[in-house]
Amino acid sequence: MSDPEIAILRQKIHGLSADDYATALRSRLPETEIAVAQTPSEERELLEQVPIATGFELSPDEVEAAPNLDLFACVYAGVGHLDLDAFEANGTAVTNASGVHGPNIAEYVIGSILSHVRGFRQAWRQQDRNEWRSYPAREFQGSTVTVVGLGSIGQAIVDRLDPFGVDTIGVRYTPEKGGPTDEVLGFDEIQDALARTDYLVLACPLTDETRGLIDSEAFLTLPSDAFMVNIARGGVVDTDALVAAMQANRISGAALDVTDPEPLPNDHPLWDIDTVSITPHNAGHTPNYYERTAEILATNVERYRQGETEYENQVV
Amino acid sequence: MSDPEIAILRQKIHGLSADDYATALRSRLPETEIAVAQTPSEERELLEQVPIATGFELSPDEVEAAPNLDLFACVYAGVGHLDLDAFEANGTAVTNASGVHGPNIAEYVIGSILSHVRGFRQAWRQQDRNEWRSYPAREFQGSTVTVVGLGSIGQAIVDRLDPFGVDTIGVRYTPEKGGPTDEVLGFDEIQDALARTDYLVLACPLTDETRGLIDSEAFLTLPSDAFMVNIARGGVVDTDALVAAMQANRISGAALDVTDPEPLPNDHPLWDIDTVSITPHNAGHTPNYYERTAEILATNVERYRQGETEYENQVV
Repeated sequence: MSDPEIAILRQKIHGLSADDYATALRSRLPETEIAVAQTPSEERELLEQVPIATGFELSPDEVEAAPNLDLFACVYAGVGHLDLDAFEANGTAVTNASGVHGPNIAEYVIGSILSHVRGFRQAWRQQDRNEWRSYPAREFQGSTVTVVGLGSIGQAIVDRLDPFGVDTIGVRYTPEKGGPTDEVLGFDEIQDALARTDYLVLACPLTDETRGLIDSEAFLTLPSDAFMVNIARGGVVDTDALVAAMQANRISGAALDVTDPEPLPNDHPLWDIDTVSITPHNAGHTPNYYERTAEILATNVERYRQGETEYENQVV
Repeated sequence: MSDPEIAILRQKIHGLSADDYATALRSRLPETEIAVAQTPSEERELLEQVPIATGFELSPDEVEAAPNLDLFACVYAGVGHLDLDAFEANGTAVTNASGVHGPNIAEYVIGSILSHVRGFRQAWRQQDRNEWRSYPAREFQGSTVTVVGLGSIGQAIVDRLDPFGVDTIGVRYTPEKGGPTDEVLGFDEIQDALARTDYLVLACPLTDETRGLIDSEAFLTLPSDAFMVNIARGGVVDTDALVAAMQANRISGAALDVTDPEPLPNDHPLWDIDTVSITPHNAGHTPNYYERTAEILATNVERYRQGETEYENQVV
């Protein structure tokens, strides 16, 4: 057996294991020696020798202890948790998993909106009581949907909205780039967008500009029938303002896959607000997660072998 | 005040009243005298004089007592509850409300599927316990969706499936007509379709051919991971076979807007099956219901005045 070329670090995502990832990679790279680290010491030994590693994260110390590491394929879409300077100093390229979440997060967003539209939570409450009783619903067609952030996830959401007969507004840093929505506005115009919004979807990164973006002003500007979906980061919404807005019925509901703080403490008031639906930051989960991350890495392994130094999804 | 030209019979739909319907009609026909019957005796008097009436139903006796009635605009999409011969004998044309339900029922269907895909019911159960705990979800993209019935509702569903990246199979009486799905099969080939189906959507009328269509054979043919949505009629599914299939975990879940019997009795076993979601036959509800029925009737009132005898949505 030859020396391993790729080390898969220890990792688990929503019930998927590193072995699932190895299977997905081996089916794409049958000639490649791929090792899965089972223990911390195995992980350290592997990192001393391999040119390519893939996993959640590597600390600066771990990077320094990996003298031959040319490429680290992070399996997260965001790399804010990595010390990128340490990788650069070590001559290690870093790629992320941007794009793998588009389909599943878009399915989460459209599903959340339509569950609200059709009142499914009321149906399930009635079902718990064996109660057959008609109730009115809303209609999505003809609504205005504002998507904040037009990256690969925002784009996947807008694509799926198309046949529902809704108007779409995109909000992004660089409105001059245009986008897939009927209108594209900058962050300086977000209040104009909110005033016309029936469904607000947050799909932007958490940055200095987006931290606390949806605050008490925003909840006042939104129409009282508006519904918000947050699949970005909890910090994009001012949690106290959200609780106050929901308690005062200032908007009609919210679906949150992310919260601030996270995990949401057991005694947090958000849990008990009837018009708020909370999922445990699992909108990113898909059974195809490792298939898609393996696809990116397999492409980059080919490039590495060809001596190319530009990778797909490269961030360092 | 001149004699009324249109009588609106007493009716209520999911919290909408006959007065809402009158408002929608008057905005389209401002010059027309439109009367809303408030009591049984007012309804009888109006039916004796008006040329046009609109509502849920008229019994053969009521039709006979309406000598001047040229047009009855039924506000239901289906007219199986009407004695059409009585209308024909009275020289009364009948129209239905086919097409008004497309958008809202399609939103119900896509929402039901994506709620299952994303495990929202589990999320709501966990939320009831203030519990933050990740769980795996499915992915819709790449699935095969079979839609039984390609009328206006089936068409509206297929339209909205398009950007989700799924394969679609349509099942209809007249496969030679083709359709909007990737494949179109006849009812004689339904088992072939079921064997390849991840999501089964029932959107066909209840006829001799479709009564009990989804029986124990069908549940055995469907893959064990399949999910079924019934927005047709309860009788299209064999209820005993459904209960047995769900109890044996033969398919992964079902969303039922219609049941047999209906309303579902309080002690029926379907209520308590965790993988079955029940709504009280309200997928047809939309706040725009009367706007859309009024649109059809306004078009036909214009035709009536022009002396035309062919109406939109005419069934007699």
